[in-house]
Amino acid sequence: MAKKSKAPAARKKPAPKTRKPTARAKTAKPRRDPLAPTPVMTGKGPGPLEVGKSLVEMFNRGLFAEIEDTWWDKKKIASVEGHGVGMAWVGLKAVRAKNDGWVAEHAIHGASAEGPFVGSTGFTVRFKMDVETKATGQRQVMDEVGVYTVENGKIVREEFMYLIP
Amino acid sequence: MAKKSKAPAARKKPAPKTRKPTARAKTAKPRRDPLAPTPVMTGKGPGPLEVGKSLVEMFNRGLFAEIEDTWWDKKKIASVEGHGVGMAWVGLKAVRAKNDGWVAEHAIHGASAEGPFVGSTGFTVRFKMDVETKATGQRQVMDEVGVYTVENGKIVREEFMYLIP
Repeated sequence: MAKKSKAPAARKKPAPKTRKPTARAKTAKPRRDPLAPTPVMTGKGPGPLEVGKSLVEMFNRGLFAEIEDTWWDKKKIASVEGHGVGMAWVGLKAVRAKNDGWVAEHAIHGASAEGPFVGSTGFTVRFKMDVETKATGQRQVMDEVGVYTVENGKIVREEFMYLIP
Repeated sequence: MAKKSKAPAARKKPAPKTRKPTARAKTAKPRRDPLAPTPVMTGKGPGPLEVGKSLVEMFNRGLFAEIEDTWWDKKKIASVEGHGVGMAWVGLKAVRAKNDGWVAEHAIHGASAEGPFVGSTGFTVRFKMDVETKATGQRQVMDEVGVYTVENGKIVREEFMYLIP
């Protein structure tokens, strides 16, 4: 069940159980409430909100190369394709080779990005692309979600997930 | 740049560079092409497609408890809330406590799930919920994406990401 709240549940955690004082009690560290949540962070630099907003804006202006230049972690970037492909391309050269191959084989007649949907470890974007496969002339509207992981202000991982109607 | 293809790029990898034969060449293992992708798998049991389809169908029938009973990995489940909350609840008791708290504080006037969008490590679902905060009477339509990770036929992690307009 989804949850969205301006008042984090952390503030609503039940009061800690009282314990009888013991000889060790004065020096013992307070025991952590096992039901309490722990913070999730992405490190230094721009977080998922800033990176996600910028990516969506760049995509909708057609600035695809700028997305890579600005936001990819050049040392860590990995790209995973979803259902029916099931593969991970790891490293800048491998991801570039995948994308270059795809661009060479397809003509894009229209593309839009919706989002970002902003999480704690990253963000997601919904893409719709009107795409023609050059070799066959086949045209289709792709409807998919990109799931992006952010670390220290850069995108380190993307996974594309396809709408199965 | 997103990619969707019935013909995995694995088949399109460039031919390996030819090497002059050496004394070691006959026994050397073939060197892996560093640009080639590697398979991504979720282990035994139902994969992201099956789990995702079932979750969406159950959600749209209002069978929220059944989703947990059927698909959560009771030992590993972790739930992460996104932007503005930034917390992870780890373990069955903690995730249940979070959800129970949320359900107690809100009235749901309508809810729908769209998807699944199917990846390699899991799937995503887009949720729209018409929700009233009981204490204040405030009503809003939440628009968010749930990102689910599947391992060995179960959901081990969910992260909710909120649409920031």
